[in-house]
Amino acid sequence: MFTTFRGGQSGAWRVTSLAPVKGEPLAAVRSLSIINAAAIALPLLPAQTSWRLAGVASHARYLERAEMERLAEVQAGLGRTESTCAALIPIKKSSAWWELAQEERRLIFEDKSHHIAASLKYLPMIARQLYHCRDLGEPFDFLTWFEFAPEHTMLFDDLLATLRATEEWTYVEREVDVRVVREVLAAV
Amino acid sequence: MFTTFRGGQSGAWRVTSLAPVKGEPLAAVRSLSIINAAAIALPLLPAQTSWRLAGVASHARYLERAEMERLAEVQAGLGRTESTCAALIPIKKSSAWWELAQEERRLIFEDKSHHIAASLKYLPMIARQLYHCRDLGEPFDFLTWFEFAPEHTMLFDDLLATLRATEEWTYVEREVDVRVVREVLAAV
Repeated sequence: MFTTFRGGQSGAWRVTSLAPVKGEPLAAVRSLSIINAAAIALPLLPAQTSWRLAGVASHARYLERAEMERLAEVQAGLGRTESTCAALIPIKKSSAWWELAQEERRLIFEDKSHHIAASLKYLPMIARQLYHCRDLGEPFDFLTWFEFAPEHTMLFDDLLATLRATEEWTYVEREVDVRVVREVLAAV
Repeated sequence: MFTTFRGGQSGAWRVTSLAPVKGEPLAAVRSLSIINAAAIALPLLPAQTSWRLAGVASHARYLERAEMERLAEVQAGLGRTESTCAALIPIKKSSAWWELAQEERRLIFEDKSHHIAASLKYLPMIARQLYHCRDLGEPFDFLTWFEFAPEHTMLFDDLLATLRATEEWTYVEREVDVRVVREVLAAV
């Protein structure tokens, strides 16, 4: 099952900001749609006015058993009614990161950057789903989708600031920050 | 860059045996071809008489620094003139494996199953390239391609027997063993 995030002129989420954090930006789009399917969905529009990013919700790469259990206790699922705000954060890490050995990546990820421990205090307010795409020939390595209620926007900004201040983040060579709000259905 | 192994009626490698080791077999084919390209290559023939398996040569998932260095010292690359024998071993592991935490998978992989340590004595005679495909929506999780000279065939069989006797292998739910020899170019 692939998840495709399609930026274009229509979709269930309206883009409120689309900011490059590091590296090449993405084209400005009005809306974002999310398609879960057995194949990667194609863009509907020419590439100048749209984009398409795809990933796979795969197994956890760094989590240890105790961390998996702690996360399972506190994290929330996607799709909560009150979560009318969301963010798509595509990230590409440098080849220096990917050439590290497993224990070196884990050391930077958690022992030095506290990626999991520091994120825990933002749960369950911020719901999160990671999609892997490095092996799909995609322009990014990961797509992370976050959902939260409007009153937790500052909390979410704080989470991003925390992650971007870590040693792990020095290996990020491209990041875009796409903020969206759920489209209100017009009365028909 | 995707690597596609295409089983069919023509190709640079002639299939000498194609045996299911565990789970569903693959259709019998005469030949195997290998295509490296930016997209996954399609099969040339109807599915009853051919198959197509694709993967990505990705970063190492479990290797620690000392193991990476030791492997780099002793392993050989693909394409040696004397390596006229080869094998394609597609493997799918169970969901029980993929639900394990990282340190649990590493423990079974190396501390208990000695996947790396036990393989080292077969290097450089057996050259190896692993391709990941679990995240590509493929029927297998890994494709491993091995190349060796004809006189090392028994050594290769010994390597496979060693790997199949490990605790790690109890998590394998599908494996096929495809043996091939390089086609001799006809004088034209």
